Amino acid sequence: MQIQSFVPPVRTLMGPGPSDVHPRVLAAMARPTIGHLDPQFGAMMEQLKYLLQYAFQTKNTLTIPVSAPGSAGMESCFVNLVEPGDKVIVCQNGVFGGRMKENVERAGGVAVMVQDPWGRAVDPNKLRETLQAHRDAKVVAFVHAETSTGAQSDAATLCAIAREFDCLTIVDAVTSLGGSPVLVDEWGVDAVYSGSQKCLSCTPGLAPVSFGDRAVERIKARKQRVASWFLDLTLVMGYWGDKGKRVYHHTAPINPLYGLHESLVILHEEGIENAWQRHAQNHQALRAGIEAMGLEFIVPEAERLPQLNAIGVPAGVDEAKVRQRLLQEFDLEIGAGLGELAGKIWRIGQMGFASNPKNILYCLNALEAVLVSMKAPIETGKAAAAALAVATA
Amino acid sequence: MQIQSFVPPVRTLMGPGPSDVHPRVLAAMARPTIGHLDPQFGAMMEQLKYLLQYAFQTKNTLTIPVSAPGSAGMESCFVNLVEPGDKVIVCQNGVFGGRMKENVERAGGVAVMVQDPWGRAVDPNKLRETLQAHRDAKVVAFVHAETSTGAQSDAATLCAIAREFDCLTIVDAVTSLGGSPVLVDEWGVDAVYSGSQKCLSCTPGLAPVSFGDRAVERIKARKQRVASWFLDLTLVMGYWGDKGKRVYHHTAPINPLYGLHESLVILHEEGIENAWQRHAQNHQALRAGIEAMGLEFIVPEAERLPQLNAIGVPAGVDEAKVRQRLLQEFDLEIGAGLGELAGKIWRIGQMGFASNPKNILYCLNALEAVLVSMKAPIETGKAAAAALAVATA
Repeated sequence: MQIQSFVPPVRTLMGPGPSDVHPRVLAAMARPTIGHLDPQFGAMMEQLKYLLQYAFQTKNTLTIPVSAPGSAGMESCFVNLVEPGDKVIVCQNGVFGGRMKENVERAGGVAVMVQDPWGRAVDPNKLRETLQAHRDAKVVAFVHAETSTGAQSDAATLCAIAREFDCLTIVDAVTSLGGSPVLVDEWGVDAVYSGSQKCLSCTPGLAPVSFGDRAVERIKARKQRVASWFLDLTLVMGYWGDKGKRVYHHTAPINPLYGLHESLVILHEEGIENAWQRHAQNHQALRAGIEAMGLEFIVPEAERLPQLNAIGVPAGVDEAKVRQRLLQEFDLEIGAGLGELAGKIWRIGQMGFASNPKNILYCLNALEAVLVSMKAPIETGKAAAAALAVATA
Repeated sequence: MQIQSFVPPVRTLMGPGPSDVHPRVLAAMARPTIGHLDPQFGAMMEQLKYLLQYAFQTKNTLTIPVSAPGSAGMESCFVNLVEPGDKVIVCQNGVFGGRMKENVERAGGVAVMVQDPWGRAVDPNKLRETLQAHRDAKVVAFVHAETSTGAQSDAATLCAIAREFDCLTIVDAVTSLGGSPVLVDEWGVDAVYSGSQKCLSCTPGLAPVSFGDRAVERIKARKQRVASWFLDLTLVMGYWGDKGKRVYHHTAPINPLYGLHESLVILHEEGIENAWQRHAQNHQALRAGIEAMGLEFIVPEAERLPQLNAIGVPAGVDEAKVRQRLLQEFDLEIGAGLGELAGKIWRIGQMGFASNPKNILYCLNALEAVLVSMKAPIETGKAAAAALAVATA
């Protein structure tokens, strides 16, 4: 078997992630590799920490990229902050709350679930009631931006409630970071994780995390060692911590870190408030087009995540066939539903570099063309104009 | 603070890794990102598995890249194959055997150490004696190619002994894969891990692993769930396993996987036996030059790893200053000693794309120039000619 170099197609990525990667980030990925202990790499690491603090809006010293995908970022939070026997309140309103439960249990903790409907925000009252019934809880975990449903929860309120009960918070900001406000210090988040491949417009494979002082104290006071050597922050800190004396832990993924650095430089240049505003405006443009077609959002307006839009599939339409045709005929990727929403929704992302009017219009036009050819019951000929009116407002 | 794009210097990487990355691999890293569930990405994944089987010389179905650095590859072996209470014999002859012990203990296992001197191969007789004294051992773990010392152990013999005692084997082939023979099927290795950034000439961040049938059976028969969700192979297999029905687990690091694919295509084109031969010949060239300078290898000839050369620092020489000058004046990276060899050795790698006569001569000339200017007690004017004679033989 003779195998050729892999030359991928040029897609437009408007699913739940990865999103389109900025050309400057791709160029950065191809720069010459240097050593993970090279002083020049160390200087880049210092900038990277500063830029991540900016993205997370925090002064937390322990703000670094975990050398693995977002799932490992999640695991680094749970495996470091949960000790065997610890009770953890997990708010679930989609797939990723379920994964949090898995993480709690594998770390030896006891998960107490607070369930909300998929497609809705987490209900703060239910969290409060659960904490009142479980005064021995040590951690509250929730997903700020549920990638599986497009719902956004009120992280400030949830963190305030957790703190009333003296619980640390672990917050999933995988899909929100860079696309809508994630205010780690203002909200009082203790530990937060994200991914490189959503609103940061970087390639997948790195997980930005940030830990506040209370979380670091908890880690330092652990009775048992962390079950994972690779994710043990007391060791990882030795490499990322003090620029004067980096201690080898694992070999950092050099080129992906170039890419993340570049993506954060781009965010810094744009200004994070401008990036939030851009996502919000393009969301409104997409929304205008979607509604002009007669399609519906499954998440109530006040709880919608601008960068990830969950749209109900019209009755009688083969949703997988629509996605397949969009990919094959238009090189356009949108996402399917997950878990209990599988087959019922499409997930249309407009994240980071991919959040622009050109993509919004392309997506609406392509979706309309496919739905029309499949004789789906939609309004035609109105979506693009409706979106354009909002995008240029 | 205004931060610019990071433009790294162009180094020559002849330390213990990362090694110089092939320009074709860097180019692959910059190709357009596509989705992790895109059918075209799935086709690339199938090729990647085939190419990794070739690199490991195995037919093992479960041969995949873990989406994280080599250390996570190590952890994926231990966390899946060791259950709480399991006794694991760990042969240690350098830093990485010590890390194996950490992994055993964090997985809840009991590590029984077989110690050999740093800079020597693992002694098979000691392993046999230890197994005779610990008939309840379930796993034998050892490092095939000790990156911290440049010693290579007789993996075939160690695996045969382990099998006599009905133990599974976990083998560290981080530095050997692609540079010297790693014959997973012929040796009867049950689980093996490596890294992308050594003799494969790819960027750091991915960990090729391979698990044989006995290992997969052991994983399927586990009484307790794996402590790590991210590294749980029963879940990871759902994504990498059957090409017809990939199940989302985590978002794969798309562009780094392009890079690994390209590096393996290059290895396949060269032919793995030719790659081994190239490393062996360039090692002999480097050796001729090093010895012509009057410097000495710390590993006995029969136990030397061709791709990583541990050289004793001459008396009275500030070894860190030498490395610093090589980096600053020659853009050349070589490695320091680790652990008990810190300050006593240099580690000169010639791995993958970096293993070529041009680099060997450059390294020898630069090292000689720096040592001469520091008035080190070496033979001068002979190294390059000695190396060249061997390189062109």
